[in-house]
Amino acid sequence: MGQKRVVVALADGFEEIEALAPVDILRRAGLEVVVAGVGSGESEGAHGVRVPADTTIEKVTERPDAVVLPGGMPGAENLEKSRVLADLCRDVRDRGGLVAAICAAPAVALESFGLIGSKRFTCYPGFESRVKNGAFSEDRVVVDGNLVTSRGPGTAMEFALEIVRILVGESTARDLTKGLLLRT
Amino acid sequence: MGQKRVVVALADGFEEIEALAPVDILRRAGLEVVVAGVGSGESEGAHGVRVPADTTIEKVTERPDAVVLPGGMPGAENLEKSRVLADLCRDVRDRGGLVAAICAAPAVALESFGLIGSKRFTCYPGFESRVKNGAFSEDRVVVDGNLVTSRGPGTAMEFALEIVRILVGESTARDLTKGLLLRT
Repeated sequence: MGQKRVVVALADGFEEIEALAPVDILRRAGLEVVVAGVGSGESEGAHGVRVPADTTIEKVTERPDAVVLPGGMPGAENLEKSRVLADLCRDVRDRGGLVAAICAAPAVALESFGLIGSKRFTCYPGFESRVKNGAFSEDRVVVDGNLVTSRGPGTAMEFALEIVRILVGESTARDLTKGLLLRT
Repeated sequence: MGQKRVVVALADGFEEIEALAPVDILRRAGLEVVVAGVGSGESEGAHGVRVPADTTIEKVTERPDAVVLPGGMPGAENLEKSRVLADLCRDVRDRGGLVAAICAAPAVALESFGLIGSKRFTCYPGFESRVKNGAFSEDRVVVDGNLVTSRGPGTAMEFALEIVRILVGESTARDLTKGLLLRT
């Protein structure tokens, strides 16, 4: 079995902690992480941090095991506008891969892509009103089948560790939680 | 009174969460944050995230109210090698500004710059053996006079919020903690 691959989608206005804590932690877990620019090869975060992507979303041809959508505004809206990203997310879901989103992204992008449906989910407080049929939860990280959602910058590390738990395993997630000195 | 300025020093091998969570949070608090490259105008983090700096450390001429040193290896060692950064940190300390460092950076860079002395400090577990006279604490964030130190990626947001508390105020720090959905 080869190394699992995760695509993190980055658009202008991305929330820096929500995008980069997952990149950092998933790479620590030994996953191959591809930062894919949506709309541009270099994105500027909601707080002015510019990050050149590894590739663009159009060039992601090898299907990943998971796709991660950070929040931030207008980052989540910029993700929502991408038909290529919508197709990729639906394709990952159809093949049993993970679709993960945090903050505004579950309610703005995934709902628009038709990927929340009636599933259990969470998002940044207030954005849940944009989701029609999903079952909103206030848990910090919510897993329902192949859908992983979370709430905001302060939950980004827990969100990443849940993805590690699913794709790599419980003991790696536990070791990382300890090594990162995360409050538990 | 003008807007307070904070320099975040970035060298190759910086820990992404420890560098960028403070940039994000200090900017949310309304501080002017300058990301200053040490040794290069674009640094690559310990987990492969490239970040172009706003300027280089040599070009920081206006004295900041605080300087922040992220950890990561070899990031902290690359900071330690910079005489320009050492001079800036000592200058900020001499004028009563804050010197803040996290993870390996307190023990590797600040100790080498002569800025720990016999002060209370913390750092990533194990690195405390490199500090000769400082009083090591296992607290997640330690403030002793103008010195703010912290432990690792999992404490980076608390570290940033402590800097906000000192430079901006308690109520801003409290509002941010809530808005970020940080576990308290």
